Amino acid sequence: MSKPLILVSNDDGITSKGIRVLVSAMKKLGDVVVVAPDSPQSGMGHAITIGQTLRLYEEDIFEGVLAYKSSGTPADCVKLAKHYVLKDRKPDLVVSGINHGSNTSISVLYSGTMSAAIEGALEGYPSIGFSLCDFSSKAEFSHVEEWVEKIARQVLENGIPKGIALNVNFPPKRNEDIRGIKICRQADAKWQEEFVERYDPMGRKYFWLAGNFVNFDKGEDNDEWAIANNYVSIVPCQYDLTAHHAISHINKEWDWNKLGD
Amino acid sequence: MSKPLILVSNDDGITSKGIRVLVSAMKKLGDVVVVAPDSPQSGMGHAITIGQTLRLYEEDIFEGVLAYKSSGTPADCVKLAKHYVLKDRKPDLVVSGINHGSNTSISVLYSGTMSAAIEGALEGYPSIGFSLCDFSSKAEFSHVEEWVEKIARQVLENGIPKGIALNVNFPPKRNEDIRGIKICRQADAKWQEEFVERYDPMGRKYFWLAGNFVNFDKGEDNDEWAIANNYVSIVPCQYDLTAHHAISHINKEWDWNKLGD
Repeated sequence: MSKPLILVSNDDGITSKGIRVLVSAMKKLGDVVVVAPDSPQSGMGHAITIGQTLRLYEEDIFEGVLAYKSSGTPADCVKLAKHYVLKDRKPDLVVSGINHGSNTSISVLYSGTMSAAIEGALEGYPSIGFSLCDFSSKAEFSHVEEWVEKIARQVLENGIPKGIALNVNFPPKRNEDIRGIKICRQADAKWQEEFVERYDPMGRKYFWLAGNFVNFDKGEDNDEWAIANNYVSIVPCQYDLTAHHAISHINKEWDWNKLGD
Repeated sequence: MSKPLILVSNDDGITSKGIRVLVSAMKKLGDVVVVAPDSPQSGMGHAITIGQTLRLYEEDIFEGVLAYKSSGTPADCVKLAKHYVLKDRKPDLVVSGINHGSNTSISVLYSGTMSAAIEGALEGYPSIGFSLCDFSSKAEFSHVEEWVEKIARQVLENGIPKGIALNVNFPPKRNEDIRGIKICRQADAKWQEEFVERYDPMGRKYFWLAGNFVNFDKGEDNDEWAIANNYVSIVPCQYDLTAHHAISHINKEWDWNKLGD
């Protein structure tokens, strides 16, 4: 039996620590191909490159692994992998990460890591985004490699329902040992932003986006709770954004006469 | 009674045709404030600017309307509006667009227009993204202004359920007259990409993302069907990406012993 083909991408860039750990874990499970951004793409959400040219260069950076770096976004990387690098070969698994920083709760919307996974799911590939909930510059990734391997193995064996990508977050190493895995919903939380004002040497104002994460969720079935309690959180994420429950509500509440229908 | 405060943004940039039509329609309903990108931001998804400085300049471009242009993404513009431009004033409505091109179906994921609306919904404001399903350079927006006004009026009067932004798409003017409004789900469709290869004057390869839209959906309750049949499509979109139905499935299918839990 041939080994599974595993596509690896990320949003922190091809030279980041997290992707090295991810590649190392995936090499135990299959044949690995990497297509990742040539520079950090954090906060890119599901951006794609349409008004600019895209570059793609082979990069001999992971031992025994075919790897490419691209000037594009994480979503671009998955598209380039499918249409240009892999061509007729179909990956058995798409993994993205391991992101340096949390992608729990609402951060999934802004996450380049998850956009690569969701792009994989869109193409019908079982796809997972991995993130480490540690923004510190000295974040340690070593404690998660065995968990990454276990989760990827489960997905290779059992698949993921159609139209879904997994958003996996790990507690930081400085915490006590990981207690297990929780399959969760996305917590009800948000970033409470502020903008820091500065002036450049020409005297012109500019801003830095800053702020704090605020958790409104009191439940114990969400990803924030899982991480705070030293569990690995796994949220199955869908790209059908339809709020199905709202369709009948709007149909009932709106005054259709005013709409000329 | 004071007039409603309406925040306008978009992703085609502050000088685009679509935002002029949107501002014109909103001036009939309330006090309008514009914060929009200084250049086109199509395909930016829910990107935010975190590794670079953000600029914001007042721009006297719409008669009698306070307007700012920003170097940031559509999501940045809504954040800047909330935290810097409006400060203590809370918008009664956030509208984005009118996008030059369709944002039906899966395009909602890549859409800067919708990211501004979803960012508004995140802040608890009733929010709508408007798009015209016409990519031609001569696209006409005149036939949609009355519909934009009607829909915005409905939202001001009836609100939108919490956690939801409306994704509104209009048929092109070249079609027969608009027949009415359909509250829809997101169609099951995708972009079938390809990459066009070119070489720059230095002989280095680059790529352009290209491709076709493929609709797999045979239903008559989705946005693609509505547009094809000359209805305005309105999809209520949520930012909770959790695939709730998949949580129990994964809990049941996965072999937890292998996960060491």
